[in-house]
Amino acid sequence: MTAPVCTLSLTDHGRAPTVALQAQDETGQTRETLICGEHPLTLYLDKRELVTLMTLGTHPEDLALGWLRNQRIVTDIETLAAVQVDWDTESVAITSRTLAEHGRTLWTDQAAEALDARLGQRTVTTGCGQGTVYGDLMSSLGDVQWGHSIPLTRDAVYRVIDQVRGHDTLYKQAGAVHACALFSQVQAGMPRLLRFVEDVGRHNAVDAIAGWMWREGLSGDNLIFYTTGRLTSEMVIKCAQMGIPVLMSRSGLTGMGHALAEQLGLTMFARCQGRHYLLYTGAHRLLDTQPAQA
Amino acid sequence: MTAPVCTLSLTDHGRAPTVALQAQDETGQTRETLICGEHPLTLYLDKRELVTLMTLGTHPEDLALGWLRNQRIVTDIETLAAVQVDWDTESVAITSRTLAEHGRTLWTDQAAEALDARLGQRTVTTGCGQGTVYGDLMSSLGDVQWGHSIPLTRDAVYRVIDQVRGHDTLYKQAGAVHACALFSQVQAGMPRLLRFVEDVGRHNAVDAIAGWMWREGLSGDNLIFYTTGRLTSEMVIKCAQMGIPVLMSRSGLTGMGHALAEQLGLTMFARCQGRHYLLYTGAHRLLDTQPAQA
Repeated sequence: MTAPVCTLSLTDHGRAPTVALQAQDETGQTRETLICGEHPLTLYLDKRELVTLMTLGTHPEDLALGWLRNQRIVTDIETLAAVQVDWDTESVAITSRTLAEHGRTLWTDQAAEALDARLGQRTVTTGCGQGTVYGDLMSSLGDVQWGHSIPLTRDAVYRVIDQVRGHDTLYKQAGAVHACALFSQVQAGMPRLLRFVEDVGRHNAVDAIAGWMWREGLSGDNLIFYTTGRLTSEMVIKCAQMGIPVLMSRSGLTGMGHALAEQLGLTMFARCQGRHYLLYTGAHRLLDTQPAQA
Repeated sequence: MTAPVCTLSLTDHGRAPTVALQAQDETGQTRETLICGEHPLTLYLDKRELVTLMTLGTHPEDLALGWLRNQRIVTDIETLAAVQVDWDTESVAITSRTLAEHGRTLWTDQAAEALDARLGQRTVTTGCGQGTVYGDLMSSLGDVQWGHSIPLTRDAVYRVIDQVRGHDTLYKQAGAVHACALFSQVQAGMPRLLRFVEDVGRHNAVDAIAGWMWREGLSGDNLIFYTTGRLTSEMVIKCAQMGIPVLMSRSGLTGMGHALAEQLGLTMFARCQGRHYLLYTGAHRLLDTQPAQA
Protein backbone atom coordinates (compact mmCIF):
# COMPACT_ATOMS: atom_id res chain seq x y z
CA MET A 1 0.00 0.00 0.00
CA THR A 2 1.14 3.55 -0.68
CA ALA A 3 0.95 6.35 1.86
CA PRO A 4 -2.26 8.36 1.76
CA VAL A 5 -2.09 11.43 -0.47
CA CYS A 6 -4.13 14.57 0.21
CA THR A 7 -6.71 14.54 -2.54
CA LEU A 8 -9.06 17.16 -1.20
CA SER A 9 -11.22 18.44 -4.03
CA LEU A 10 -11.62 22.23 -3.93
CA THR A 11 -13.51 24.77 -5.97
CA ASP A 12 -11.73 28.08 -6.66
CA HIS A 13 -14.62 30.51 -6.38
CA GLY A 14 -13.13 33.62 -4.82
CA ARG A 15 -15.18 36.74 -5.54
CA ALA A 16 -13.95 40.09 -6.75
CA PRO A 17 -13.42 42.04 -3.51
CA THR A 18 -14.86 45.40 -4.48
CA VAL A 19 -17.83 46.99 -6.17
CA ALA A 20 -17.95 50.51 -7.57
CA LEU A 21 -20.37 52.91 -5.91
CA GLN A 22 -21.10 56.57 -6.36
CA ALA A 23 -20.78 58.96 -3.44
CA GLN A 24 -21.05 62.70 -3.05
CA ASP A 25 -17.95 64.38 -1.65
CA GLU A 26 -17.75 67.50 0.50
CA THR A 27 -17.82 69.77 -2.55
CA GLY A 28 -21.08 68.22 -3.71
CA GLN A 29 -19.38 66.43 -6.59
CA THR A 30 -20.35 62.87 -7.40
CA ARG A 31 -17.38 60.51 -7.27
CA GLU A 32 -16.91 56.89 -8.22
CA THR A 33 -15.59 54.95 -5.20
CA LEU A 34 -14.70 51.34 -4.54
CA ILE A 35 -16.21 49.59 -1.55
CA CYS A 36 -15.75 46.13 -0.13
CA GLY A 37 -18.23 43.36 -0.71
CA GLU A 38 -19.82 41.66 2.32
CA HIS A 39 -21.56 38.39 1.57
CA PRO A 40 -23.19 35.72 3.69
CA LEU A 41 -21.64 32.28 3.29
CA THR A 42 -23.31 29.35 5.02
CA LEU A 43 -21.12 26.35 5.87
CA TYR A 44 -22.51 22.82 5.61
CA LEU A 45 -20.53 19.77 6.73
CA ASP A 46 -22.00 16.55 5.42
CA LYS A 47 -25.21 18.47 4.73
CA ARG A 48 -25.53 19.76 8.28
CA GLU A 49 -25.68 23.56 8.58
CA LEU A 50 -22.96 24.92 10.87
CA VAL A 51 -22.75 28.69 10.66
CA THR A 52 -23.23 31.71 8.40
CA LEU A 53 -20.17 33.93 8.04
CA MET A 54 -20.26 37.44 6.58
CA THR A 55 -17.23 37.63 4.34
CA LEU A 56 -15.49 39.56 1.59
CA GLY A 57 -15.54 36.23 -0.23
CA THR A 58 -12.10 36.24 -1.85
CA HIS A 59 -10.93 32.98 -0.19
CA PRO A 60 -14.12 31.08 0.62
CA GLU A 61 -12.64 27.56 0.46
CA ASP A 62 -9.77 28.37 2.84
CA LEU A 63 -12.15 30.30 5.06
CA ALA A 64 -14.43 27.26 5.39
CA LEU A 65 -11.50 24.95 6.10
CA GLY A 66 -9.91 27.31 8.60
CA TRP A 67 -13.19 27.86 10.42
CA LEU A 68 -13.66 24.10 10.80
CA ARG A 69 -10.08 23.80 12.02
CA ASN A 70 -10.09 26.73 14.45
CA GLN A 71 -13.43 25.66 15.89
CA ARG A 72 -11.93 22.16 16.22
CA ILE A 73 -14.93 20.63 14.48
CA VAL A 74 -12.57 18.74 12.18
CA THR A 75 -9.13 17.91 13.57
CA ASP A 76 -7.56 16.16 10.56
CA ILE A 77 -7.86 17.54 7.04
CA GLU A 78 -7.42 14.00 5.70
CA THR A 79 -10.94 13.21 6.88
CA LEU A 80 -12.32 15.64 4.27
CA ALA A 81 -13.00 14.85 0.61
CA ALA A 82 -14.35 18.07 -0.89
CA VAL A 83 -15.01 21.77 -0.31
CA GLN A 84 -17.44 23.22 -2.83
CA VAL A 85 -18.45 26.86 -2.84
CA ASP A 86 -21.63 27.95 -4.61
CA TRP A 87 -22.34 31.69 -4.54
CA ASP A 88 -25.76 31.24 -6.16
CA THR A 89 -26.90 29.66 -2.92
CA GLU A 90 -24.30 31.54 -0.81
CA SER A 91 -23.13 28.27 0.63
CA VAL A 92 -20.16 25.96 0.89
CA ALA A 93 -20.64 22.22 1.04
CA ILE A 94 -17.86 20.37 2.88
CA THR A 95 -17.99 16.62 2.39
CA SER A 96 -16.19 14.06 4.53
CA ARG A 97 -14.44 11.00 3.14
CA THR A 98 -16.76 8.72 5.04
CA LEU A 99 -19.70 10.29 3.21
CA ALA A 100 -17.96 10.52 -0.17
CA GLU A 101 -16.51 7.02 -0.09
CA HIS A 102 -18.78 5.03 2.20
CA GLY A 103 -22.05 6.92 2.23
CA ARG A 104 -21.91 7.48 6.00
CA THR A 105 -22.24 11.00 7.38
CA LEU A 106 -19.92 12.27 10.15
CA TRP A 107 -22.96 13.26 12.16
CA THR A 108 -23.79 10.66 14.73
CA ASP A 109 -26.56 11.86 17.02
CA GLN A 110 -23.97 12.31 19.73
CA ALA A 111 -21.65 14.43 17.57
CA ALA A 112 -24.52 16.64 16.45
CA GLU A 113 -25.70 17.17 20.00
CA ALA A 114 -22.22 18.00 21.28
CA LEU A 115 -21.75 20.54 18.51
CA ASP A 116 -25.05 22.23 19.18
CA ALA A 117 -24.17 22.54 22.84
CA ARG A 118 -20.79 24.02 22.06
CA LEU A 119 -21.88 26.50 19.38
CA GLY A 120 -24.76 27.48 21.62
CA GLN A 121 -22.43 28.91 24.28
CA ARG A 122 -23.04 32.60 24.48
CA THR A 123 -19.87 34.48 25.17
CA VAL A 124 -19.72 37.54 22.96
CA THR A 125 -16.05 38.20 22.58
CA THR A 126 -14.21 41.40 21.80
CA GLY A 127 -12.94 40.54 18.36
CA CYS A 128 -14.79 40.89 15.12
CA GLY A 129 -17.35 38.19 14.46
CA GLN A 130 -16.78 34.74 15.88
CA GLY A 131 -18.69 35.08 19.09
CA THR A 132 -18.71 31.60 20.52
CA VAL A 133 -15.20 30.32 20.91
CA TYR A 134 -13.67 31.68 24.05
CA GLY A 135 -14.15 29.53 27.14
CA ASP A 136 -14.12 26.30 25.27
CA LEU A 137 -10.90 26.98 23.42
CA MET A 138 -9.00 28.20 26.44
CA SER A 139 -9.53 24.88 28.14
CA SER A 140 -7.76 23.15 25.24
CA LEU A 141 -4.78 25.52 25.24
CA GLY A 142 -3.59 25.18 28.82
CA ASP A 143 -0.81 22.86 27.77
CA VAL A 144 0.31 24.31 24.43
CA GLN A 145 3.84 23.17 23.56
CA TRP A 146 5.85 25.33 21.20
CA GLY A 147 8.22 23.74 18.72
CA HIS A 148 11.82 24.89 18.54
CA SER A 149 11.79 28.06 16.44
CA ILE A 150 14.50 30.19 14.88
CA PRO A 151 15.36 33.22 17.04
CA LEU A 152 14.08 36.60 15.89
CA THR A 153 16.21 39.65 15.24
CA ARG A 154 15.17 43.27 15.31
CA ASP A 155 15.83 43.47 11.56
CA ALA A 156 13.47 40.56 10.98
CA VAL A 157 10.75 42.44 12.83
CA TYR A 158 11.38 45.51 10.66
CA ARG A 159 11.28 43.36 7.53
CA VAL A 160 7.79 42.14 8.45
CA ILE A 161 6.62 45.70 9.08
CA ASP A 162 8.06 46.88 5.75
CA GLN A 163 6.59 44.06 3.72
CA VAL A 164 3.11 44.53 5.13
CA ARG A 165 3.28 48.25 4.45
CA GLY A 166 4.48 47.71 0.91
CA HIS A 167 1.79 45.20 0.07
CA ASP A 168 -0.83 46.23 -2.44
CA THR A 169 -3.80 46.12 -0.13
CA LEU A 170 -7.47 46.37 -0.64
CA TYR A 171 -7.51 48.55 2.46
CA LYS A 172 -5.78 51.33 0.56
CA GLN A 173 -8.39 51.07 -2.21
CA ALA A 174 -11.59 50.59 -0.31
CA GLY A 175 -10.97 50.46 3.46
CA ALA A 176 -13.31 48.57 5.80
CA VAL A 177 -11.17 45.43 5.88
CA HIS A 178 -8.70 43.86 8.25
CA ALA A 179 -5.59 42.16 6.95
CA CYS A 180 -3.59 39.20 8.23
CA ALA A 181 -0.24 38.06 6.91
CA LEU A 182 1.83 34.96 7.45
CA PHE A 183 5.64 35.05 7.26
CA SER A 184 8.17 32.26 7.42
CA GLN A 185 11.38 32.71 9.35
CA VAL A 186 14.41 31.48 7.51
CA GLN A 187 17.63 30.45 9.28
CA ALA A 188 20.15 33.28 8.83
CA GLY A 189 17.78 35.10 6.50
CA MET A 190 14.92 37.52 6.46
CA PRO A 191 11.24 36.59 6.93
CA ARG A 192 9.40 35.77 3.71
CA LEU A 193 5.74 36.64 3.08
CA LEU A 194 3.78 33.42 2.56
CA ARG A 195 0.19 34.61 2.57
CA PHE A 196 -1.74 37.86 2.82
CA VAL A 197 -5.53 37.83 3.32
CA GLU A 198 -7.99 40.64 3.85
CA ASP A 199 -11.61 40.32 4.93
CA VAL A 200 -14.42 42.44 6.30
CA GLY A 201 -14.33 40.15 9.35
CA ARG A 202 -10.99 40.12 11.12
CA HIS A 203 -11.39 36.53 12.23
CA ASN A 204 -12.30 35.45 8.73
CA ALA A 205 -8.88 36.62 7.58
CA VAL A 206 -7.22 34.58 10.35
CA ASP A 207 -9.34 31.53 9.55
CA ALA A 208 -8.57 31.77 5.82
CA ILE A 209 -4.86 31.68 6.64
CA ALA A 210 -5.39 28.74 9.00
CA GLY A 211 -7.22 26.90 6.23
CA TRP A 212 -4.41 27.55 3.77
CA MET A 213 -1.77 26.35 6.28
CA TRP A 214 -3.80 23.21 6.76
CA ARG A 215 -3.98 22.49 3.04
CA GLU A 216 -0.25 23.12 2.73
CA GLY A 217 0.54 20.93 5.74
CA LEU A 218 2.47 23.80 7.38
CA SER A 219 3.24 23.71 11.09
CA GLY A 220 3.53 27.05 12.85
CA ASP A 221 6.94 26.64 14.54
CA ASN A 222 8.93 28.98 12.33
CA LEU A 223 6.14 31.29 11.32
CA ILE A 224 5.23 34.84 12.25
CA PHE A 225 1.62 36.01 12.25
CA TYR A 226 0.83 39.64 11.54
CA THR A 227 -2.58 41.30 11.95
CA THR A 228 -3.74 44.86 11.40
CA GLY A 229 -6.28 44.31 14.17
CA ARG A 230 -6.02 44.61 17.91
CA LEU A 231 -4.36 41.93 20.00
CA THR A 232 -7.33 40.69 21.98
CA SER A 233 -7.71 37.42 23.83
CA GLU A 234 -9.26 35.81 20.76
CA MET A 235 -6.40 36.75 18.48
CA VAL A 236 -3.89 35.28 20.93
CA ILE A 237 -5.93 32.08 21.22
CA LYS A 238 -6.15 31.64 17.46
CA CYS A 239 -2.43 32.22 17.03
CA ALA A 240 -1.69 29.58 19.68
CA GLN A 241 -4.14 27.21 18.01
CA MET A 242 -2.21 27.51 14.77
CA GLY A 243 0.99 26.78 16.71
CA ILE A 244 2.57 30.12 15.69
CA PRO A 245 4.87 31.47 18.43
CA VAL A 246 5.18 35.09 17.20
CA LEU A 247 2.28 37.55 16.87
CA MET A 248 2.65 41.11 15.60
CA SER A 249 0.22 43.97 15.11
CA ARG A 250 0.30 47.61 14.22
CA SER A 251 -2.49 48.12 16.76
CA GLY A 252 -2.52 47.92 20.52
CA LEU A 253 -3.41 45.10 22.86
CA THR A 254 -5.97 44.48 25.57
CA GLY A 255 -5.32 43.38 29.14
CA MET A 256 -6.72 39.93 28.57
CA GLY A 257 -4.78 39.52 25.32
CA HIS A 258 -1.63 40.31 27.29
CA ALA A 259 -2.44 37.96 30.16
CA LEU A 260 -3.12 35.09 27.77
CA ALA A 261 -0.01 35.68 25.67
CA GLU A 262 2.09 35.63 28.82
CA GLN A 263 0.41 32.50 30.10
CA LEU A 264 0.80 30.71 26.76
CA GLY A 265 4.39 31.81 26.18
CA LEU A 266 3.66 33.68 22.95
CA THR A 267 5.99 36.41 21.70
CA MET A 268 3.79 39.45 21.12
CA PHE A 269 4.69 42.75 19.46
CA ALA A 270 2.19 45.62 19.44
CA ARG A 271 2.28 49.06 17.78
CA CYS A 272 4.58 47.92 14.99
CA GLN A 273 4.98 50.98 12.81
CA GLY A 274 7.94 52.21 10.83
CA ARG A 275 10.97 51.59 13.05
CA HIS A 276 8.98 51.29 16.24
CA TYR A 277 7.43 48.44 18.15
CA LEU A 278 6.59 47.42 21.70
CA LEU A 279 7.44 43.86 22.75
CA TYR A 280 5.10 42.80 25.54
CA THR A 281 5.66 39.08 26.08
CA GLY A 282 8.04 36.30 25.10
CA ALA A 283 11.24 38.38 24.86
CA HIS A 284 13.29 35.16 25.00
CA ARG A 285 12.70 34.63 21.27
CA LEU A 286 14.32 37.96 20.35
CA LEU A 287 18.11 37.76 19.93
CA ASP A 288 19.19 41.37 20.27
CA THR A 289 17.28 42.50 23.31
CA GLN A 290 20.00 44.68 24.77
CA PRO A 291 19.42 48.43 24.68
CA ALA A 292 20.91 49.85 21.48
CA GLN A 293 24.09 51.88 21.91
CA ALA A 294 23.55 55.60 21.76
CA MET B 1 -52.72 58.78 40.85
CA THR B 2 -49.60 60.50 39.60
CA ALA B 3 -47.85 59.59 36.36
CA PRO B 4 -45.22 56.91 36.72
CA VAL B 5 -41.72 58.25 37.31
CA CYS B 6 -38.62 56.43 36.14
CA THR B 7 -37.16 55.12 39.38
CA LEU B 8 -34.66 52.69 37.96
CA SER B 9 -32.07 51.94 40.61
CA LEU B 10 -28.54 51.88 39.19
CA THR B 11 -25.09 51.18 40.55
CA ASP B 12 -22.27 53.40 39.27
CA HIS B 13 -19.46 50.88 39.03
CA GLY B 14 -17.47 51.92 35.97
CA ARG B 15 -13.91 50.60 36.05
CA ALA B 16 -10.72 52.51 35.37
CA PRO B 17 -10.13 51.91 31.65
CA THR B 18 -6.39 51.28 31.63
CA VAL B 19 -3.71 49.36 33.46
CA ALA B 20 0.01 50.14 33.33
CA LEU B 21 2.20 47.48 31.75
CA GLN B 22 5.87 47.32 30.95
CA ALA B 23 7.02 46.68 27.39
CA GLN B 24 10.38 46.63 25.69
CA ASP B 25 10.74 49.06 22.81
CA GLU B 26 12.84 48.71 19.67
CA THR B 27 15.93 50.04 21.42
CA GLY B 28 15.64 47.36 24.09
CA GLN B 29 14.57 49.89 26.72
CA THR B 30 11.80 48.99 29.12
CA ARG B 31 8.90 51.43 28.96
CA GLU B 32 5.80 51.91 31.03
CA THR B 33 2.74 51.77 28.77
CA LEU B 34 -0.99 51.99 29.31
CA ILE B 35 -3.22 49.28 27.92
CA CYS B 36 -6.96 48.83 27.91
CA GLY B 37 -8.72 46.52 30.29
CA GLU B 38 -10.91 43.73 28.89
CA HIS B 39 -13.23 42.14 31.39
CA PRO B 40 -15.98 39.55 31.15
CA LEU B 41 -19.38 40.81 32.32
CA THR B 42 -22.23 38.33 32.51
CA LEU B 43 -25.76 39.71 32.23
CA TYR B 44 -28.59 38.22 34.29
CA LEU B 45 -32.20 39.32 33.87
CA ASP B 46 -34.40 38.20 36.75
CA LYS B 47 -31.65 35.70 37.65
CA ARG B 48 -31.59 34.14 34.18
CA GLU B 49 -28.14 34.23 32.50
CA LEU B 50 -28.27 35.95 29.11
CA VAL B 51 -24.79 36.56 27.73
CA THR B 52 -21.20 37.29 28.67
CA LEU B 53 -19.76 40.43 27.10
CA MET B 54 -16.05 41.26 27.01
CA THR B 55 -15.84 44.94 27.87
CA LEU B 56 -13.60 47.78 28.91
CA GLY B 57 -16.02 48.16 31.80
CA THR B 58 -16.29 51.94 32.06
CA HIS B 59 -20.10 52.06 31.53
CA PRO B 60 -21.36 48.63 32.63
CA GLU B 61 -24.87 49.73 33.65
CA ASP B 62 -25.56 51.51 30.35
CA LEU B 63 -23.97 48.62 28.45
CA ALA B 64 -26.33 46.13 30.10
CA LEU B 65 -29.36 48.33 29.44
CA GLY B 66 -28.38 49.01 25.84
CA TRP B 67 -27.71 45.35 25.14
CA LEU B 68 -31.18 44.42 26.44
CA ARG B 69 -32.67 47.21 24.35
CA ASN B 70 -30.79 46.52 21.12
CA GLN B 71 -31.46 42.81 21.39
CA ARG B 72 -35.11 43.72 21.99
CA ILE B 73 -35.25 41.51 25.06
CA VAL B 74 -36.78 44.39 26.99
CA THR B 75 -38.79 46.93 24.99
CA ASP B 76 -39.78 49.39 27.74
CA ILE B 77 -37.29 50.61 30.34
CA GLU B 78 -40.21 51.21 32.72
CA THR B 79 -40.51 47.45 33.17
CA LEU B 80 -37.12 47.44 34.93
CA ALA B 81 -36.48 48.15 38.61
CA ALA B 82 -32.71 47.79 39.08
CA VAL B 83 -29.36 47.31 37.34
CA GLN B 84 -26.65 46.21 39.74
CA VAL B 85 -23.07 45.62 38.66
CA ASP B 86 -20.76 43.52 40.81
CA TRP B 87 -17.19 43.18 39.51
CA ASP B 88 -16.26 40.64 42.20
CA THR B 89 -18.50 38.19 40.41
CA GLU B 90 -18.08 39.91 37.01
CA SER B 91 -21.83 40.11 36.66
CA VAL B 92 -24.71 42.51 36.35
CA ALA B 93 -28.08 41.68 37.84
CA ILE B 94 -31.02 43.32 36.08
CA THR B 95 -34.26 43.05 38.00
CA SER B 96 -37.73 43.64 36.58
CA ARG B 97 -40.48 45.51 38.40
CA THR B 98 -42.65 42.43 38.41
CA LEU B 99 -39.94 40.58 40.34
CA ALA B 100 -39.00 43.51 42.59
CA GLU B 101 -42.58 44.47 43.42
CA HIS B 102 -44.64 41.34 42.96
CA GLY B 103 -42.16 38.48 43.26
CA ARG B 104 -42.94 37.21 39.74
CA THR B 105 -40.05 36.69 37.30
CA LEU B 106 -40.33 37.86 33.67
CA TRP B 107 -39.38 34.38 32.53
CA THR B 108 -42.41 32.39 31.60
CA ASP B 109 -41.44 29.05 30.06
CA GLN B 110 -42.51 30.42 26.70
CA ALA B 111 -40.37 33.57 26.98
CA ALA B 112 -37.33 31.57 28.03
CA GLU B 113 -37.73 29.16 25.15
CA ALA B 114 -38.19 31.93 22.59
CA LEU B 115 -35.07 33.69 23.84
CA ASP B 116 -32.96 30.54 23.69
CA ALA B 117 -34.10 29.94 20.13
CA ARG B 118 -33.26 33.48 19.11
CA LEU B 119 -29.87 33.78 20.80
CA GLY B 120 -29.03 30.35 19.46
CA GLN B 121 -29.15 31.56 15.84
CA ARG B 122 -25.70 31.22 14.43
CA THR B 123 -24.97 34.03 12.07
CA VAL B 124 -21.48 35.33 12.71
CA THR B 125 -21.61 38.91 11.61
CA THR B 126 -18.86 41.19 10.41
CA GLY B 127 -18.80 43.64 13.26
CA CYS B 128 -16.95 43.27 16.52
CA GLY B 129 -18.65 40.96 19.00
CA GLN B 130 -22.43 40.62 18.90
CA GLY B 131 -22.68 37.60 16.68
CA THR B 132 -26.34 36.70 16.79
CA VAL B 133 -28.44 39.65 15.82
CA TYR B 134 -28.60 39.92 12.09
CA GLY B 135 -31.46 38.07 10.44
CA ASP B 136 -33.83 38.56 13.28
CA LEU B 137 -33.33 42.29 13.55
CA MET B 138 -33.65 42.96 9.86
CA SER B 139 -37.13 41.52 9.87
CA SER B 140 -38.16 44.10 12.45
CA LEU B 141 -36.69 47.05 10.56
CA GLY B 142 -38.48 46.72 7.23
CA ASP B 143 -40.89 49.48 8.13
CA VAL B 144 -38.71 51.94 10.06
CA GLN B 145 -40.29 55.41 10.11
CA TRP B 146 -37.99 58.37 10.64
CA GLY B 147 -39.18 61.35 12.60
CA HIS B 148 -38.91 64.83 11.12
CA SER B 149 -35.32 65.92 11.70
CA ILE B 150 -33.48 69.21 11.33
CA PRO B 151 -31.63 69.43 7.99
CA LEU B 152 -27.86 69.01 8.09
CA THR B 153 -25.35 71.51 6.76
CA ARG B 154 -21.81 70.85 5.61
CA ASP B 155 -20.56 72.94 8.54
CA ALA B 156 -22.49 70.75 10.94
CA VAL B 157 -20.74 67.69 9.52
CA TYR B 158 -17.37 69.41 9.98
CA ARG B 159 -18.29 70.34 13.54
CA VAL B 160 -18.90 66.69 14.37
CA ILE B 161 -15.55 65.68 12.83
CA ASP B 162 -13.72 68.41 14.75
CA GLN B 163 -15.31 67.61 18.09
CA VAL B 164 -14.52 63.92 17.82
CA ARG B 165 -10.92 64.70 16.90
CA GLY B 166 -10.55 67.12 19.76
CA HIS B 167 -11.95 64.75 22.34
CA ASP B 168 -9.53 63.44 24.95
CA THR B 169 -9.74 59.78 24.01
CA LEU B 170 -8.48 56.65 25.56
CA TYR B 171 -7.49 55.60 22.05
CA LYS B 172 -4.73 58.17 22.02
CA GLN B 173 -3.44 56.84 25.35
CA ALA B 174 -3.77 53.12 24.95
CA GLY B 175 -5.27 52.19 21.57
CA ALA B 176 -7.23 48.98 21.07
CA VAL B 177 -10.63 50.62 21.52
CA HIS B 178 -13.40 51.82 19.29
CA ALA B 179 -15.28 55.02 20.04
CA CYS B 180 -18.85 56.07 19.44
CA ALA B 181 -20.24 59.54 19.92
CA LEU B 182 -23.73 60.95 20.00
CA PHE B 183 -24.50 64.50 18.87
CA SER B 184 -27.69 66.51 19.00
CA GLN B 185 -28.65 68.74 16.11
CA VAL B 186 -29.88 72.13 17.17
CA GLN B 187 -32.13 74.29 14.99
CA ALA B 188 -29.98 77.03 13.45
CA GLY B 189 -27.01 75.92 15.50
CA MET B 190 -24.12 73.55 15.55
CA PRO B 191 -24.28 69.90 16.72
CA ARG B 192 -23.53 69.42 20.40
CA LEU B 193 -21.69 66.39 21.81
CA LEU B 194 -24.01 64.49 24.15
CA ARG B 195 -22.08 61.31 24.86
CA PHE B 196 -18.73 59.74 24.01
CA VAL B 197 -18.06 56.08 24.83
CA GLU B 198 -15.08 53.87 24.07
CA ASP B 199 -14.90 50.12 24.47
CA VAL B 200 -12.74 47.20 23.39
CA GLY B 201 -15.85 45.87 21.64
CA ARG B 202 -17.25 48.24 19.03
CA HIS B 203 -20.80 47.11 19.62
CA ASN B 204 -20.43 47.54 23.34
CA ALA B 205 -19.78 51.23 22.74
CA VAL B 206 -22.95 51.48 20.64
CA ASP B 207 -24.97 49.57 23.21
CA ALA B 208 -23.72 51.76 26.06
CA ILE B 209 -24.93 54.82 24.17
CA ALA B 210 -28.27 53.14 23.46
CA GLY B 211 -28.62 52.39 27.17
CA TRP B 212 -27.88 55.97 28.10
CA MET B 213 -30.41 57.31 25.54
CA TRP B 214 -32.97 54.95 27.03
CA ARG B 215 -32.38 56.20 30.56
CA GLU B 216 -32.57 59.80 29.37
CA GLY B 217 -35.73 59.13 27.37
CA LEU B 218 -34.10 60.53 24.21
CA SER B 219 -35.57 59.77 20.81
CA GLY B 220 -33.15 59.64 17.89
CA ASP B 221 -34.88 62.08 15.50
CA ASN B 222 -32.46 64.99 15.80
CA LEU B 223 -29.38 63.05 16.69
CA ILE B 224 -26.22 62.16 14.78
CA PHE B 225 -24.32 58.97 15.52
CA TYR B 226 -20.56 58.85 14.97
CA THR B 227 -18.39 55.73 15.11
CA THR B 228 -14.68 55.21 14.56
CA GLY B 229 -15.50 51.74 13.22
CA ARG B 230 -16.53 50.54 9.81
CA LEU B 231 -20.06 50.99 8.51
CA THR B 232 -21.16 47.38 8.28
CA SER B 233 -24.67 46.02 8.10
CA GLU B 234 -24.78 45.65 11.88
CA MET B 235 -23.82 49.25 12.52
CA VAL B 236 -26.56 50.45 10.16
CA ILE B 237 -29.11 48.18 11.84
CA LYS B 238 -28.22 49.41 15.33
CA CYS B 239 -28.42 53.04 14.23
CA ALA B 240 -31.87 52.43 12.74
CA GLN B 241 -32.94 50.63 15.92
CA MET B 242 -32.04 53.69 17.95
CA GLY B 243 -34.09 55.81 15.52
CA ILE B 244 -31.07 57.95 14.57
CA PRO B 245 -31.25 59.10 10.94
CA VAL B 246 -27.62 60.21 10.47
CA LEU B 247 -24.58 57.91 10.74
CA MET B 248 -20.99 59.07 10.32
CA SER B 249 -17.64 57.30 10.41
CA ARG B 250 -14.03 58.06 9.72
CA SER B 251 -13.75 54.55 8.26
CA GLY B 252 -15.17 53.02 5.12
CA LEU B 253 -18.32 51.04 4.48
CA THR B 254 -19.19 47.57 3.26
CA GLY B 255 -21.51 46.66 0.42
CA MET B 256 -24.17 45.30 2.71
CA GLY B 257 -23.91 48.31 5.02
CA HIS B 258 -24.57 50.49 1.99
CA ALA B 259 -27.48 48.42 0.71
CA LEU B 260 -29.17 48.48 4.11
CA ALA B 261 -28.65 52.20 4.67
CA GLU B 262 -30.21 52.89 1.28
CA GLN B 263 -33.13 50.57 1.97
CA LEU B 264 -33.76 52.06 5.41
CA GLY B 265 -33.39 55.69 4.30
CA LEU B 266 -30.44 56.43 6.58
CA THR B 267 -28.07 59.31 5.82
CA MET B 268 -24.58 57.81 5.85
CA PHE B 269 -21.23 59.58 5.68
CA ALA B 270 -18.01 57.56 5.40
CA ARG B 271 -14.33 58.62 5.46
CA CYS B 272 -15.00 61.69 7.54
CA GLN B 273 -11.57 63.20 8.08
CA GLY B 274 -10.50 66.81 8.33
CA ARG B 275 -12.49 68.66 5.68
CA HIS B 276 -13.35 65.56 3.68
CA TYR B 277 -16.22 63.13 3.68
CA LEU B 278 -18.13 60.87 1.33
CA LEU B 279 -21.93 60.92 1.52
CA TYR B 280 -23.28 57.59 0.31
CA THR B 281 -26.98 57.56 1.13
CA GLY B 282 -29.76 59.86 2.27
CA ALA B 283 -28.52 63.08 0.60
CA HIS B 284 -31.99 64.59 1.07
CA ARG B 285 -31.11 65.46 4.69
CA LEU B 286 -28.15 67.62 3.63
CA LEU B 287 -29.06 71.22 2.82
CA ASP B 288 -26.12 72.43 0.76
CA THR B 289 -25.62 69.62 -1.67
CA GLN B 290 -24.71 71.75 -4.66
CA PRO B 291 -21.13 71.61 -5.86
CA ALA B 292 -19.12 74.36 -4.15
CA GLN B 293 -18.16 77.28 -6.38
CA ALA B 294 -14.57 77.18 -7.55
